[in-house]
Amino acid sequence: ETERVLLGHGSGGRLSAELIDEVLLPGLGAAAPGGPLEDAAVVTLAGSDLVLSTDAYVVDPLFFPGGDIGVLAVHGTVNDLAMRAAMPIALTVAYIVEEGLPIEDLRRVAASVGAAAVAAGVPVVTGDTKVVGKGAADRLFVITAGLGRRLPGAAPTAAGARPGDAVLISGPIGCHGITVLSTREGLGFEADVASDTRPLHRLVADMVDAGGLNLHTLRDLTRGGLASALNEIAAASKVGIEIEESALPVPEPVRAACEMLGLDPAYVANEGCLVAFVAPGAAEAVLAAMRSTPEGAEAVRIGVVHDHGPVLVRTAVGSRRVLDMLLGEQLPRIC
Amino acid sequence: ETERVLLGHGSGGRLSAELIDEVLLPGLGAAAPGGPLEDAAVVTLAGSDLVLSTDAYVVDPLFFPGGDIGVLAVHGTVNDLAMRAAMPIALTVAYIVEEGLPIEDLRRVAASVGAAAVAAGVPVVTGDTKVVGKGAADRLFVITAGLGRRLPGAAPTAAGARPGDAVLISGPIGCHGITVLSTREGLGFEADVASDTRPLHRLVADMVDAGGLNLHTLRDLTRGGLASALNEIAAASKVGIEIEESALPVPEPVRAACEMLGLDPAYVANEGCLVAFVAPGAAEAVLAAMRSTPEGAEAVRIGVVHDHGPVLVRTAVGSRRVLDMLLGEQLPRIC
Ligand SMILES: Nc1ncnc2c1ncn2[C@@H]1O[C@H](COP(=O)(O)OP(=O)(O)OP(=O)(O)O)[C@@H](O)[C@H]1O
Ligand SMILES: Nc1ncnc2c1ncn2[C@@H]1O[C@H](COP(=O)(O)OP(=O)(O)OP(=O)(O)O)[C@@H](O)[C@H]1O
Ligand SMILES: [Mg+2]
Ligand SMILES: [Mg+2]
Ligand SMILES: [Mg+2]
Ligand SMILES: [Mg+2]
Ligand SMILES: [Mg+2]
Ligand SMILES: [Mg+2]
Repeated sequence: ETERVLLGHGSGGRLSAELIDEVLLPGLGAAAPGGPLEDAAVVTLAGSDLVLSTDAYVVDPLFFPGGDIGVLAVHGTVNDLAMRAAMPIALTVAYIVEEGLPIEDLRRVAASVGAAAVAAGVPVVTGDTKVVGKGAADRLFVITAGLGRRLPGAAPTAAGARPGDAVLISGPIGCHGITVLSTREGLGFEADVASDTRPLHRLVADMVDAGGLNLHTLRDLTRGGLASALNEIAAASKVGIEIEESALPVPEPVRAACEMLGLDPAYVANEGCLVAFVAPGAAEAVLAAMRSTPEGAEAVRIGVVHDHGPVLVRTAVGSRRVLDMLLGEQLPRIC
Repeated sequence: ETERVLLGHGSGGRLSAELIDEVLLPGLGAAAPGGPLEDAAVVTLAGSDLVLSTDAYVVDPLFFPGGDIGVLAVHGTVNDLAMRAAMPIALTVAYIVEEGLPIEDLRRVAASVGAAAVAAGVPVVTGDTKVVGKGAADRLFVITAGLGRRLPGAAPTAAGARPGDAVLISGPIGCHGITVLSTREGLGFEADVASDTRPLHRLVADMVDAGGLNLHTLRDLTRGGLASALNEIAAASKVGIEIEESALPVPEPVRAACEMLGLDPAYVANEGCLVAFVAPGAAEAVLAAMRSTPEGAEAVRIGVVHDHGPVLVRTAVGSRRVLDMLLGEQLPRIC
C-alpha cells in the first residue's frame, strides 16, 4: 500500500517530527549540512549574526476574533526570529490564492500584513502572488519569511536548556487555538476569548537585557502548544522537565472550552506566548523584566529542568503524569 | 456583484500587475515605504548589500521532463537574487501538502530541493511543513525564500534600462512552458523538449565581471515570458524597446508546438533564461562572457532600447508590431 501524508503530519506533533526527520531532512541531504534545522537559522556574515525563518499559514477561517491569517503570518515569522534573540530587519510575503476569492478578502489580509509589519517595525520588501483554480486551494494561504539580526550577547537555542534552569512562560495559554476552533465550528466560545497573536521581539529584547547568555532557550508555543514545545526542547537539550500544573496560566474561558471539548490546554495552539529556560541565578531578573512589558505582564515561573527523564506535570494533589508529545493532529489548520 | 480573484490575476500579465498595484501594495501601506517592490529586494546592513527574494510554486504536474516543483523552487529564488547581481547565501523552504499525497512524492521533491541547492552551492537553513485536508490544496505547493549578497560593482534594477542599451538574451525561449503544458495535457511535445530550469547566478557573476555597472537591468523570463519581462522593464525604466523577431532563439520543437497550439513563444514561460540591458560600449564584452558559460552558450543580441514608445517587434519583412503585455493567463500553473 502507498504510504500517504496524513493530516496529523502537519500537527507539530510526533508525526510531524517523523516526516521531517525521515523524509524531508534526508531529502535535503548535503544541502542541510548541520542536521536538523531550527525554526530560525543563524547565518553568519561579515561578523553580524543574521537569522532567517519561514512559516506557511493555512488557518481556517481566514478571519477570527483577535486577528486573521495576515496578522498571524507577520507575527509568526517575527516570533521565530525573536526565539533566536533576533530583531526583524525585513519580511517577504507570498500569497497562494484560490480563484474566486473575493478581492475584498485579499485587500483586508494585505492591510493586516501591512499594519502588523508597521506595528512590529519591520518592512515588507518583496512578495509573490500565485492564483490556482477553484478547488485547488482553500481560499488563501500566506507564506512569510524573515531576515533578522541577533542581539549581541545572547544565543538562545532549542539545545541550550540545562539542569536547574527555571522554566518561565510569558502569559496565558490556549486562547488562539480555542478562538480559531470555536469560530470555525460556530461553538460560541469566541464571544469570550480572542487569539493572543502578537509580536514578541520587544519582550525578548528586554529579556536579553536582563538575562544575556543566561537565556538558554526561547520557544514560542504554536501548533503543538506548550506540551510539544517542552518535548522538543527536552529532546534537543537531552534533559527532563517538570512543570507545576497549578502554575499554568489557563484563562477561565479556555478552561471551560477545553473541559467541554475534551481538550488539554497544554496542547492547544498559541500565537503570542513563549517559554524561556533561564539559568537559576538569572530567573528572577528575567521574570521581572518580562512582567514590566505588556506582552509579558502575566509571566510566571512554571517549572524546572532535570538532568534526565520525560516532561512531567506535577498535579495539585502531588501526583506526577507524563506530558507526552501528541502523535498527530489535535486541531487541524489552526495556524 | 462581488469582485473576485480570477485565474488571470496569477498570470504575471496585466491583471497580475493590477492586483498588486491596486490591492496588495496599498494594503501594505507604510510597511512598503519605497512603493512597488522588486522581485528581489536590497537590504543594506552594516555596509554589505543583502538581497531577499521569495516565490511560491504551484506548478501542475509536480514532475515533468527536465525538473520538478522542488528544482523550480530552488532555481527560481536563486535566479531572482541573481537578477540583482546577488549570490545566494541561504534558502528557506516551506511545503503546503494535501492530505493523501504519496510520501514518495514528497521524498522525491525534498531530494530535488536538496540536490538543486547543493548544485547551486547554497544551504537550506530552515523550513516549514503544513498539511491541509483533502481538496484544500492540489497535492503540493513549495515556497522558497532566499538571502543573497550583492556582488560589489554591480547594481542592476528593473528601472535601470537606458536609451541605446543593447538587449541580450541568454538562450532559447519557450522550453519550460511548452514542456509543462504538454506534460499536463498529454500532448506529446514533451518527447522533444524539456524544461530549461537552471540556476543563473554563475552566468551573472561572469557578466558582472565583464560589464560591471554597465549591466543596467537583468531579468529572468518566468510566467509571462519574454514579452511580459520587456514590458515591465520598459514601464519601470520609462523607455521603449525594439526587438528583432529573426534574432529570437526559438527551438524548433517550441516553434512547432506554438504553431499547433496558437501560442506566441514570446509569451511562453521559461525558468533558465534571462534578458540583460547593457550600455552599448560594454555589450560585446558581456555577450562574449555569456557565450563562454554553459548557461549562456547560445546567448544573442535581440534588440535595442529607445527613449520612448512601446515594446516593438520588427518582423523579418521589416514591419513592426507591438508586443503588448497579456491581460491575463496564457497558461495557468506553469511554475
Ligand atoms: N520541509 C522542511 N525541511 C526541513 N526542515 C523542516 C521542514 N519543515 C520544518 N522543518 C524544521 O522542523 C522544525 C520544526 O518546525 P515547525 O514548523 O514545527 O516549527 P515552528 O515554525 O516554530 O512552528 P509553527 O510552524 O507551528 O510556527 C524547525 O526547526 C524547522 O526548521
Ligand atoms: N503580494 C505582494 N505584495 C507586494 N508586492 C508583490 C506581491 N506579489 C508580487 N509582488 C511584487 O510584484 C513584482 C512582480 O512579481 P512576480 O512574482 O511577477 O515577479 P517574479 O518573481 O520575477 O516572477 P515569477 O513569480 O513568475 O518568478 C515583484 O517585484 C514583487 O515583489
Ligand atoms: Mg513558527
Ligand atoms: Mg516557533
Ligand atoms: Mg514572483
Ligand atoms: Mg521569480
Ligand atoms: Mg524574476
Ligand atoms: Mg514552522
